[in-house]
Amino acid sequence: MALSIRGYAAQSATTPLAPHAFERRDPRPDDVVIDILYCGVCHSDIHQARNEWGNSTYPMVPGHEIIGRVASVGSKVTAFKPGDMVGVGCMVDSCQHCDACAQGLEQYCKEVPTFTYNGTDRRDGLPTYGGYSERIVVSDKFVLSVPDGIDPKAAAPLLCAGITTWSPLRHWKIGKGNKVAVIGLGGLGHMGLKFAKALGADVTLFTRSPGKEAEARRLGADHVVLSTDPEQMKAVAGQFDFILDTVPHQHDLNPYLATLKLNGVHVLVGLVEPIDPPVHSGGLIFGRHSIAGSLIGGIAETQEMLDFCAKHGIGADVEMIKIQDINDAYGRMLKSDVRYRFVIDLASLTA
Amino acid sequence: MALSIRGYAAQSATTPLAPHAFERRDPRPDDVVIDILYCGVCHSDIHQARNEWGNSTYPMVPGHEIIGRVASVGSKVTAFKPGDMVGVGCMVDSCQHCDACAQGLEQYCKEVPTFTYNGTDRRDGLPTYGGYSERIVVSDKFVLSVPDGIDPKAAAPLLCAGITTWSPLRHWKIGKGNKVAVIGLGGLGHMGLKFAKALGADVTLFTRSPGKEAEARRLGADHVVLSTDPEQMKAVAGQFDFILDTVPHQHDLNPYLATLKLNGVHVLVGLVEPIDPPVHSGGLIFGRHSIAGSLIGGIAETQEMLDFCAKHGIGADVEMIKIQDINDAYGRMLKSDVRYRFVIDLASLTA
Ligand SMILES: [Zn+2]
Ligand SMILES: [Zn+2]
Ligand SMILES: [Zn+2]
Ligand SMILES: [Zn+2]
Repeated sequence: MALSIRGYAAQSATTPLAPHAFERRDPRPDDVVIDILYCGVCHSDIHQARNEWGNSTYPMVPGHEIIGRVASVGSKVTAFKPGDMVGVGCMVDSCQHCDACAQGLEQYCKEVPTFTYNGTDRRDGLPTYGGYSERIVVSDKFVLSVPDGIDPKAAAPLLCAGITTWSPLRHWKIGKGNKVAVIGLGGLGHMGLKFAKALGADVTLFTRSPGKEAEARRLGADHVVLSTDPEQMKAVAGQFDFILDTVPHQHDLNPYLATLKLNGVHVLVGLVEPIDPPVHSGGLIFGRHSIAGSLIGGIAETQEMLDFCAKHGIGADVEMIKIQDINDAYGRMLKSDVRYRFVIDLASLTA
Repeated sequence: MALSIRGYAAQSATTPLAPHAFERRDPRPDDVVIDILYCGVCHSDIHQARNEWGNSTYPMVPGHEIIGRVASVGSKVTAFKPGDMVGVGCMVDSCQHCDACAQGLEQYCKEVPTFTYNGTDRRDGLPTYGGYSERIVVSDKFVLSVPDGIDPKAAAPLLCAGITTWSPLRHWKIGKGNKVAVIGLGGLGHMGLKFAKALGADVTLFTRSPGKEAEARRLGADHVVLSTDPEQMKAVAGQFDFILDTVPHQHDLNPYLATLKLNGVHVLVGLVEPIDPPVHSGGLIFGRHSIAGSLIGGIAETQEMLDFCAKHGIGADVEMIKIQDINDAYGRMLKSDVRYRFVIDLASLTA
C-alpha cells in the first residue's frame, strides 16, 4: 500500500546524487501528502550526503526546504486541504510532550526531533527521506501554511536558512533601536540582513571580502565593515547589541566580541567545531557579553516568519536549478558561488 | 596638607609585602575619610602585587574589600557622617556620564572605572592605594553603607567576592524555581552558594574534590556533584538554568554546558585566559545555551546586596589575620588553604 516515489539520492558517502526510486508510508489519519514543487539546497545536505557528520544512513534523499501543494489529507487533518500551498522544514515530528515541545520549540525536543531526512520516523521506525523527490508524507503538526503573497520559489529557503536567522532575532527581541551585525553573506546571512532590517534594526554586515557593499545594501545592510581591516573594526568597538554569526566553519570570535555593547550577544547558528582560536574570557567579562547558540526554529515561529514575510514582501534570493544539476550545484556551493540559495524545481524530476 | 598613611606595600613584582608609609590626598568636598578596620584578601591582590596581569605600578598597596568607620566627611557629603560603618569595594570612581554609569553599572564604565588600587585617580592623576592601610579617602558616590546586623569582619569579602557572585545571580533573575550550579568552592564559590540558596534556588555545587559534601550543604548546597565522575555528570545532564563558574584558571567548559537546560547560561566570573580547551558550538546550539561573563557589580547593586545580607544574616566565612602575616596568607591562598577568605584586622597595623 506504500507510495512509490521518484527522487534523487546518495547511495554512499562517495557517490554523486542520482535518480532513485523508494517508498513512503501509506498516509496516517494525521498525515498530509504533498506534491513537492520546489526544494532549497542547504549546506547540511552536502554534509550529510557525504557523511561529514558521521551519522549518515543510505540511501539518502536530502532536502529540508520543501514547498509544495497538498495532494490529499488524512481523515483527522482539519488545517489543510488539497491544493493548499504548504512548506516542510528540517523536522517532521517530535515527542510532543517535553518542556521544549510544550513551548513550541520542537527543535530543542529533549527526545530529539525527527529530522526530515537522515532520520528515523518515531512511529514506524522507518528512515525519513527529504525533498529531493516528487512527493512527501508529513504529520499535519509539522506542515506550514505558505500564505499568498510569497513567491513559492523564494519561500523554500525560508524553511531552513530563513528560520535559522529569524528564530534568534526574535528570541533576543531585536527591533527598532537595536544595532545588529550579521557575519557572512551566504544563504543564512542574506536572510539575516533582510529580517534584521525589516524588524527595524540598524544593520551592519561584517564581511572578509571587499566589494560587497552594493549587494549588502540592497539586501538591507545600513553599513558594511571589512572584518579584515583593524581600523574598521576599531571604529565599531562597543557598537552592537546583537551579532548574528552565520559562518559555518572555524573563525576567531575575539575581534567580534570587542564590537559588542554592554550586555551584547554573539549568536552562532553554524556548527563551529570547536570554537578555535579560543575565546578570551575578558571579551565576555568586560561588558557582560554572551556567546550563544541557536538551532533552526520551532513550528509556531516558522509560521510566524512566513506570515511576516508575506506581509513585508520578503523572500530568499534564489537560483533555480534542475534536479539533474544538483551535483554541479553542490560544487558551486563549496566555492560560495551562489546568490544566495539554489532551489530545485522538482518539475525537472518528472519532465 | 596631604594625609600621612601607614600601610603594607609591594615595592616590586618580586618583593614580599612590607610596611610602607605614603600619602593620600587632602579630602575634597565630596570625599569620605574612612578609618579602615578590616580588609579582605582577594586573589587579584596577589596577581597585581606580582604583576601577573602586566599592568602593575609600584609601590602597590593592595586591598579592595574594605570595611571601616567614617572619620570625617567633606562639606558636600550628606549621606555619611563620622562614626558610620561603611565599605569600599573594587572601584572608587568612574566617568559618571556614560550609558553604563547612567544605569548604575560603573564596573562597565566606557571610560574604565578608577580602581581602588593600582589605578589612577581621574581628577588629580595620582596613583590609588588600597585597603592594606590605616585610612582611605573615597568620593561619597563609591562608599557603601554597612547596615547593622552584618558582622563587619564578615562583610569585608562581600565588597568583591560577594558582589561578583551577587551581580550575575540578580542580572539573570535567579530565584525560586531555578536550578543553579556553582563551580568551585573558594571565596567566590562559597558566597555563590549562600546567595543562590537565599534567593530561593535549588543549589548544586560542582567540585573536583570528594569530601566537600558536608561543608557545601552547610553553605547552602542542596546537592553536590563530583565533576570528575562522568556518571554523576550524566545524571545532571540538561538540569541547570544557570551555572556560576568561579574557577579562576583554565578549565574545560564543555562538560558543564551539557548540564544546562534549554536557554541555560554558564557565567564566568573569573578570568580564564583563554577558554581552552575550546568550546564546542554544538554545546551552545543544541539547547540555545549561552556562555557569558560578569564583572564585579555596580554601586547600587552592591548596596542592595549588603542590605539583603543584613536581612538574611549572610556574611562571608572568614579567617582573621594580622597584616604582618599577609605574605604567609598569600602562600596559603595559592594552595587553596583558606576557608573561605582571609580578612586583615587593621588594628594589627598600628598595634
Ligand atoms: Zn538546512
Ligand atoms: Zn519533545
Ligand atoms: Zn577582588
Ligand atoms: Zn562611565
